[in-house]
Amino acid sequence: MTVAGTLYGVGVGPGDPELMTLKAARILSRAPVLAHFRKRGQLGQARSIVDGYQHPAAEELALEYPMTTERPFSDDTYRSAVTHFYNESASSIAAHLDAGRDVALVCEGDPFFYGSFMHIFNRLNGTYRVDVVPGIMGMAAAWTRSKSPFTYGDDVLTVLPGTLPLEVLVERMKTADVLVIMKLGSNFAKVRQGLAEAGLVERAIYVERASMPGEAIMRLAEKPDDSAPYFSMILVPGRGRRL
Amino acid sequence: MTVAGTLYGVGVGPGDPELMTLKAARILSRAPVLAHFRKRGQLGQARSIVDGYQHPAAEELALEYPMTTERPFSDDTYRSAVTHFYNESASSIAAHLDAGRDVALVCEGDPFFYGSFMHIFNRLNGTYRVDVVPGIMGMAAAWTRSKSPFTYGDDVLTVLPGTLPLEVLVERMKTADVLVIMKLGSNFAKVRQGLAEAGLVERAIYVERASMPGEAIMRLAEKPDDSAPYFSMILVPGRGRRL
Repeated sequence: MTVAGTLYGVGVGPGDPELMTLKAARILSRAPVLAHFRKRGQLGQARSIVDGYQHPAAEELALEYPMTTERPFSDDTYRSAVTHFYNESASSIAAHLDAGRDVALVCEGDPFFYGSFMHIFNRLNGTYRVDVVPGIMGMAAAWTRSKSPFTYGDDVLTVLPGTLPLEVLVERMKTADVLVIMKLGSNFAKVRQGLAEAGLVERAIYVERASMPGEAIMRLAEKPDDSAPYFSMILVPGRGRRL
Repeated sequence: MTVAGTLYGVGVGPGDPELMTLKAARILSRAPVLAHFRKRGQLGQARSIVDGYQHPAAEELALEYPMTTERPFSDDTYRSAVTHFYNESASSIAAHLDAGRDVALVCEGDPFFYGSFMHIFNRLNGTYRVDVVPGIMGMAAAWTRSKSPFTYGDDVLTVLPGTLPLEVLVERMKTADVLVIMKLGSNFAKVRQGLAEAGLVERAIYVERASMPGEAIMRLAEKPDDSAPYFSMILVPGRGRRL
C-alpha cells in the first residue's frame, strides 16, 4: 500500500524571494508537486516568488480561481462558486497525496493570515499529514520598507480589512494605537475618508508592493489619487516611547 | 577615509532556526560583528537561534540589559537606566560602524514588532546606513504550530499586550474578532480573568515556546495553573467562513 504524501502549506513571504524562510526553500527544492493559486491566465504572485527554488522536475498544479470577470455575482452564486472551487482544489491535491506524492502549496505572505490555503487546510487536515510553514507577512515588509518601527511597549495593534463598512472602519480607527489597513483596492477612497474622520491622515503611510519591483511608499497625505492595487496597505505606526 | 559600515537589524524568527529567512542567513554569514541583546549572565534567545549561522570569525558584541534583579524600580529610575542602556548600546555599535565594520544585530521575531532594536534604529538611522530584515513573528509560529487558521475574510485582528490593565483588556477583548495576547508572564492570571469576563475562554488556546524545544500547546480551559513564561501567548482564532 502506498504511503500518502504530505501537504505542505508554504508561506513564501511578501515578494522578495530572499524573504522566504530556509524551511520553505528546503521543502520547495524537494517537493515533487508545486501547487499554487492563480487567476485564470495569470501567473500567481506566490508562484512568481518561488520561481527557480522548486525541484527541477516538479509537476505543477495550478488552482484557478473561478472569479474571472468583473460582472457582479450575487452572494449565493459567489459562495457556491468559491465553495466548489475549494472542493475541486482539495480533490486535485488529494489525488497527488493518495499517489504518495508530497505537495507544496505556495502562499503569499503567511498561510494562516487571510489565506486561501486555510480553506484547503480545513478540508484535508485530519485525513492527510499537513505541515504549515509560516511566512513573512506583507505588513511586516511594509513597516520594514517604510522604515517605521511599529509597535512599542503596550501598544495595541489593530489589523483592519478595508472591505469593512465605513462606520465600522471609523469606530476601529478611533480606538487604535497602531493600525494596519489591508485589502485596499477599490476600498481606497472609503479608507482614506475613514482615516480623515478618525484624525489619522497625518500619521498614515501608504505602501504599495513592499519588497517587490515597483515598490512605492509615501505619506498618505501626499498620495494624489485614490487608485491602489488590492495588495497595497496603509500603516499608522506607533508613536513610540522615548527611551 | 574609511567608509562606515552598515547596521543590519536582522529578524531571526520565533525559535526554529529554519524559520530564519534566506536574507537573514546570508547577512549573518558575512557580517564581521554579531551583536545581540541579553540579560546579564544569559545567552539571549536571538543569539541562540542563529548559532552556527554566523561568520566563523565574527566578533561578538553582547548588549546587556540593565535589569538584573527583581527589586522594584521607580518609573524614573527604570526609564533612566533603560535610556542609558540604549545610548551606550548605540555607541558600541557606532564604534564598529565608524571603523568600517558591518554589524548584524539579531532580534527574536520581527525587529519592528515590539523589539528593543527599534530604540537602536531611532538613534542610528539617518547617521548610518541601516537595513532591516523582517522576521517571522512569534504569533505566526503560535498559530501555525497550534494548527489554527487565524484570520478569515474581513476579520479584524487585535494584538494585545498582557501588560495592560484588566479593564482595558476586557474592553478590547469584547470587541475583538480575532485576538493575540502577548507578554503573559506574571500577567497570566489577569489575562485569563479578562478572557472569562469577555466570554472567550472556550475559544482560547495557550501556546508556549512555539517552534522551539519544550513547545506546549493546550486549550486555555485545560491549563491547570497560572504560570507562563513572558514569551508565551494566548490565541483566539477566527471562527471562519464556510466556503
